Amino acid sequence: MDDNQNLAIQIVFEGFKNNVKAINNFLEKVSDSDLVKQVSNGKNSGHYLLGHIIAVHDNMIPLLGFGESLYPHLGDIFIKNPDNIHTEKPSIEQLREQWNSVNLMLLEKLETLNSAQWFGKHSSVSEEDFAKEPKRNKLNVVLSRTSHLAYHGGQLILLKNN
Amino acid sequence: MDDNQNLAIQIVFEGFKNNVKAINNFLEKVSDSDLVKQVSNGKNSGHYLLGHIIAVHDNMIPLLGFGESLYPHLGDIFIKNPDNIHTEKPSIEQLREQWNSVNLMLLEKLETLNSAQWFGKHSSVSEEDFAKEPKRNKLNVVLSRTSHLAYHGGQLILLKNN
Repeated sequence: MDDNQNLAIQIVFEGFKNNVKAINNFLEKVSDSDLVKQVSNGKNSGHYLLGHIIAVHDNMIPLLGFGESLYPHLGDIFIKNPDNIHTEKPSIEQLREQWNSVNLMLLEKLETLNSAQWFGKHSSVSEEDFAKEPKRNKLNVVLSRTSHLAYHGGQLILLKNN
Repeated sequence: MDDNQNLAIQIVFEGFKNNVKAINNFLEKVSDSDLVKQVSNGKNSGHYLLGHIIAVHDNMIPLLGFGESLYPHLGDIFIKNPDNIHTEKPSIEQLREQWNSVNLMLLEKLETLNSAQWFGKHSSVSEEDFAKEPKRNKLNVVLSRTSHLAYHGGQLILLKNN
């Protein structure tokens, strides 16, 4: 039924938005000086993880057919390479702004998708492969990024002082 | 379209299964002696988090109408109360088994659901409220538990020695 199809879209989209909101709430409360720390001894810093989730969400823009990435240079620092104190990273202040900008754009564009578009292919699968694997659609991209965000959200929260 | 409705179910169900699998893989590799450690200084232990995700998944059984919880006593230790070294917990060996049992049952039962059942209400919402809020369905429960599992999975992985 069409109703269920739309319900599923709403549920998935809300799940994504809720996870973005959870990170927003965290960022409002955490200080820059806590955010530079490692989430656990010898593991990624909050600084790196914040850059990482921005870079991954920024990649969603072309993947979902919404245009070009806003900050394509972040992928090198925060996806292709592991955390390294010797790598020059954008400041936390900059990253806080970029996090907001990239999600503002993503959420705005996602709001405009109709059902057929949600179930349409994402941009890194060919028409031919998509015909065989219709699961490789936009809904799936948003769902997998929701888990990704929750995963790193669970790590970032460890930096919060109670 | 019916096709899209079923695609959405498959996508959500696979997301859940993938996150369960990721925890299974982690548990295969992590030693009991690493699992008792705190995921970060002063934060929950792996022991507690493992019990927590079992208790939450165990609660899914009645919530999804699959029968009674297998380990209802775990909720007191791992949901209602925070981590406390003075609380007697089931051993890690026991928890490893319970994690497998609860997910084996859940996944088996989820496999049997038809589309209408996936979009049917979960057991803690009344028929009346469900009529007003059709999003409170089984699909939504599975989706929200997927994020929950990813969140704690991101924390547990910090215990893995590279």
